Amino acid sequence: MSNTKLNILLEDILNNKINSYKNGKVANYIPALSKVKPDLAAAVMIDMSGESYKVGDWNYKYTIQSISKPLVLALAIMELGEEAVFKRVGVEPTGEEFNSINKLVGHPKPFNPMINAGAIAITSLIRENKSGNSFDIILKFFEKVFGNKDVEFDEEVYKSEKMTADRNRSLAYFLKDHRIISGDVEKSLDLYFKQCSFKVDTLDIARASAILANNGFDPINGNEVIPEKVASLVRSVMLTCGMYDRSGSFAIEVGIPAKSGVSGGILAPVKNRFGISVFGPSLDNSGNSVVGMNILRKLSKELSLHMI
Amino acid sequence: MSNTKLNILLEDILNNKINSYKNGKVANYIPALSKVKPDLAAAVMIDMSGESYKVGDWNYKYTIQSISKPLVLALAIMELGEEAVFKRVGVEPTGEEFNSINKLVGHPKPFNPMINAGAIAITSLIRENKSGNSFDIILKFFEKVFGNKDVEFDEEVYKSEKMTADRNRSLAYFLKDHRIISGDVEKSLDLYFKQCSFKVDTLDIARASAILANNGFDPINGNEVIPEKVASLVRSVMLTCGMYDRSGSFAIEVGIPAKSGVSGGILAPVKNRFGISVFGPSLDNSGNSVVGMNILRKLSKELSLHMI
Amino acid sequence: MSNTKLNILLEDILNNKINSYKNGKVANYIPALSKVKPDLAAAVMIDMSGESYKVGDWNYKYTIQSISKPLVLALAIMELGEEAVFKRVGVEPTGEEFNSINKLVGHPKPFNPMINAGAIAITSLIRENKSGNSFDIILKFFEKVFGNKDVEFDEEVYKSEKMTADRNRSLAYFLKDHRIISGDVEKSLDLYFKQCSFKVDTLDIARASAILANNGFDPINGNEVIPEKVASLVRSVMLTCGMYDRSGSFAIEVGIPAKSGVSGGILAPVKNRFGISVFGPSLDNSGNSVVGMNILRKLSKELSLHMI
Amino acid sequence: MSNTKLNILLEDILNNKINSYKNGKVANYIPALSKVKPDLAAAVMIDMSGESYKVGDWNYKYTIQSISKPLVLALAIMELGEEAVFKRVGVEPTGEEFNSINKLVGHPKPFNPMINAGAIAITSLIRENKSGNSFDIILKFFEKVFGNKDVEFDEEVYKSEKMTADRNRSLAYFLKDHRIISGDVEKSLDLYFKQCSFKVDTLDIARASAILANNGFDPINGNEVIPEKVASLVRSVMLTCGMYDRSGSFAIEVGIPAKSGVSGGILAPVKNRFGISVFGPSLDNSGNSVVGMNILRKLSKELSLHMI
Repeated sequence: MSNTKLNILLEDILNNKINSYKNGKVANYIPALSKVKPDLAAAVMIDMSGESYKVGDWNYKYTIQSISKPLVLALAIMELGEEAVFKRVGVEPTGEEFNSINKLVGHPKPFNPMINAGAIAITSLIRENKSGNSFDIILKFFEKVFGNKDVEFDEEVYKSEKMTADRNRSLAYFLKDHRIISGDVEKSLDLYFKQCSFKVDTLDIARASAILANNGFDPINGNEVIPEKVASLVRSVMLTCGMYDRSGSFAIEVGIPAKSGVSGGILAPVKNRFGISVFGPSLDNSGNSVVGMNILRKLSKELSLHMI
Repeated sequence: MSNTKLNILLEDILNNKINSYKNGKVANYIPALSKVKPDLAAAVMIDMSGESYKVGDWNYKYTIQSISKPLVLALAIMELGEEAVFKRVGVEPTGEEFNSINKLVGHPKPFNPMINAGAIAITSLIRENKSGNSFDIILKFFEKVFGNKDVEFDEEVYKSEKMTADRNRSLAYFLKDHRIISGDVEKSLDLYFKQCSFKVDTLDIARASAILANNGFDPINGNEVIPEKVASLVRSVMLTCGMYDRSGSFAIEVGIPAKSGVSGGILAPVKNRFGISVFGPSLDNSGNSVVGMNILRKLSKELSLHMI
Repeated sequence: MSNTKLNILLEDILNNKINSYKNGKVANYIPALSKVKPDLAAAVMIDMSGESYKVGDWNYKYTIQSISKPLVLALAIMELGEEAVFKRVGVEPTGEEFNSINKLVGHPKPFNPMINAGAIAITSLIRENKSGNSFDIILKFFEKVFGNKDVEFDEEVYKSEKMTADRNRSLAYFLKDHRIISGDVEKSLDLYFKQCSFKVDTLDIARASAILANNGFDPINGNEVIPEKVASLVRSVMLTCGMYDRSGSFAIEVGIPAKSGVSGGILAPVKNRFGISVFGPSLDNSGNSVVGMNILRKLSKELSLHMI
Repeated sequence: MSNTKLNILLEDILNNKINSYKNGKVANYIPALSKVKPDLAAAVMIDMSGESYKVGDWNYKYTIQSISKPLVLALAIMELGEEAVFKRVGVEPTGEEFNSINKLVGHPKPFNPMINAGAIAITSLIRENKSGNSFDIILKFFEKVFGNKDVEFDEEVYKSEKMTADRNRSLAYFLKDHRIISGDVEKSLDLYFKQCSFKVDTLDIARASAILANNGFDPINGNEVIPEKVASLVRSVMLTCGMYDRSGSFAIEVGIPAKSGVSGGILAPVKNRFGISVFGPSLDNSGNSVVGMNILRKLSKELSLHMI
């Protein structure tokens, strides 16, 4: 498919699906999120030659939220190795919601790094090293995977998250009690809330997606950002666990690894083909972008991206 | 039974059971508790005429710990009324351990005020009023129920509890997330740790026990300390829920309302007959004093105290 | 209180409470139960001298249902001893509904003999002996505790129960899988459905209640029907576990051991004072007779029967 | 890769991995399974041109067991449509063992068709139609997907399964109680035990695998056996849920849809590339063939079959 054709297809799909935002609701558990215009929409694809296809509000900035989970998982494995990471967090899907405490009872090791409990445990592993403190380590990694030297941080969202985070705090102290988290719980939580509050646009996430799709190599500058094995692992975890209690049905329908965030973004790498990212702040019951899901469904069909 | 005879019986039972401390273990989750001599033992009974029978180390001071739960339950009902209290906490036994999070999942209202989750929720209800701040309110109530103007507070135990309280912190934030607790969680926890760290001896607890047994009236000075209906309610909750996952078997064997604490004390009021308190720091698997349980078993049989 | 006075009190209470049947609903999971007149009501008390006080429809016959549970518990202990029984069933309350499977998961031993899982396990222990087959053993025991040589059996109810018993069947096979039940599951279930289908009236149940209250001795003929220790054990289990997810609140409000059945009867022995039985087919949400509960509440207050 | 090379590779891998059977244990919950020689091993691949590669004991017959689950899922969708099927069973992974009852509590609809509860519910949907009774419908479908007119049935295994199936029976009655299963439970169970007792060899399963890999078309005779959309759905469900509590880690390591059975077989279709089947009766803790898993790991790496 020629570049022009792909851009036209993306444009068509976006226009066709944009009104489905009316079937969802913008997140409103913190004021900073609820203020967004519900009909924003964007889609970006980057192919393995580094060519990018951008439609809609692709440079609109939103907070990364849960899309940070697969990225910090990659970082943690790079920093500490698989063994240290998977001693504390499993890789099995749970069929449950993002903030579930159910499966921890009687089995305190979080089932996977895509649910909050697992992601907090992963973040708690990122520790100061010679190249800086834990916040800087994440920031620098985000700059690399977004190919963007100006990654900013949303102070207002961070503070709101921190103030309303009773469930996450409960999860974190539960993990501490079971020695899944060592060290200071509040510091780990603070780092987790910060990690979720970085500002990204759909192009940034598409770049990270392209790196994951291209086996860890940035298709634009050729740099190895993530080891091949880690990129494969992260894609696999996203496929089985990335969409919470819709992971199974998403695998059937779309067949692409994906991770969504409550701001409305979705990261969706297709191995050896495309880094995809979609955006639309209106969410379905499971917390996934309505417009984003619809675009992915259509793209999967049109471009035969279903991998399974 | 004459006073002398009862004292002799108590003495005999204590001597007969004291070596059973070897079948248990002193709590060691905080250093302050682990230092105690394991073979301490005491039993105090106060009858409805105010006469007291004291044997063993009855004036040895220990921290009240979970024995504070039924007392603060009484206080909370007196301060706020039954409705406000039981909107937040149930009265059903759970058959589970003291720090269980199991039954909260899918049913966030704590089952009863004798498990940690319920007790923390109850404590969070005690608020500053015209007679002082929440700590003072509890202190003054304790002074009354112990008939003791010099109730002291163990700073070291309080600080240790506070530092190692990850599970309780997890429970409290879970309750906050489900709006069982309103207000500041850390303040509620702080008050809860303080409430558990008051220093009492077996005579103090026997006095509180006698007040509960005597329908709320202090048999020594005749004062009404707790309304009759509240005393009855507290005794009933202790009978069905007071001994955690042994509540049912204790009701069968001993048949007396009881509440134990991790320091080794037990409060056991027998309506219209005796305020009983026993002590021995060595604990069985369920966290109840081994020597204390054995004394209560024997007393129940010898004096026909089984109520059911 | 003179006999006449007590009869008048009972009459007054019944008349006063009878209309509360409108606040509940007759069980309708099988047709045989749903056909009953909802405003039937009865109360019988038998004192420790064998005197009885009967008001309302005290000779109306209904199927015993769950009231058989404490009686067959007594029988099983008499037949096999405490150890054999409590190896298979615990004595801890669960705070859950009668047919819960929750607490079995991860803990297959039923928590107590008052929930269906526990009762089925208990029934499975009754085995043919020299005096007859398992059905005959139960029948003969029922004849003794009801002081009634003509205990009948409701074939229609038995067959209906058997046909609609999917949940109980699921529980029973779960218990078999975990070796709580040995032997043939369908035979045990069959015996359980039969045990629940014996026809009793309020006087029959009051007689059983009086025997339990009188430490196992029938106050009318002086016979020892149940060993004293077993009667005490059964009363205690009823107090902590007899009213399902209302056991705790019933202990607070009424303070008497009790066991209800879905036909609307309640067995309520008050140690050394009265064998009480009440009846009214209209049930509250927890499956307890609305009129029966109201009569017990009032009686407990008027006659100071609260034991705790 | 030439045919000869692929055969040599398969042979090498088999020889290299065959001794790993010592790290597992043959299933022994029924005698019929426990008698098998533990060091049997086989691997068969069929490519999309219908060429087959067979090594080891590829014509050794064993009972299909849980490998029937994805096949009967396909059949049920073909017979009744997606809507009727997924009204009764979900498609979300659970992270739990094959016979778990955990996730049913509070959520009676089975999470997915690869766990026993879900598979039993699916089987209960297969009903007599014009082409025969439910057993014949399954038999005929199996003959087609195995490309084998002589599919036999192991009477001994069927009878053993039926006799020892207390857990499955418990699950089935639970489903019946929640109206997930309608109709006669014992008939559904009987059909399920029969479906699990068909005798297959590794070549049979490889043929079914090839059909699933080839989008529903049999690569050997070109017939459409399963609609393309259904084949895709079944592969996707296998990828997220096929390996019980190892589904997530298998997706990471091997990245191929797979379904294992307790006899030691595994069905593993790789879309547009190969129908794979492996066999070895010695099982790991999760019930998957040790030798089979090792062969799949190695094959995935050597032939770059990881799909995600």
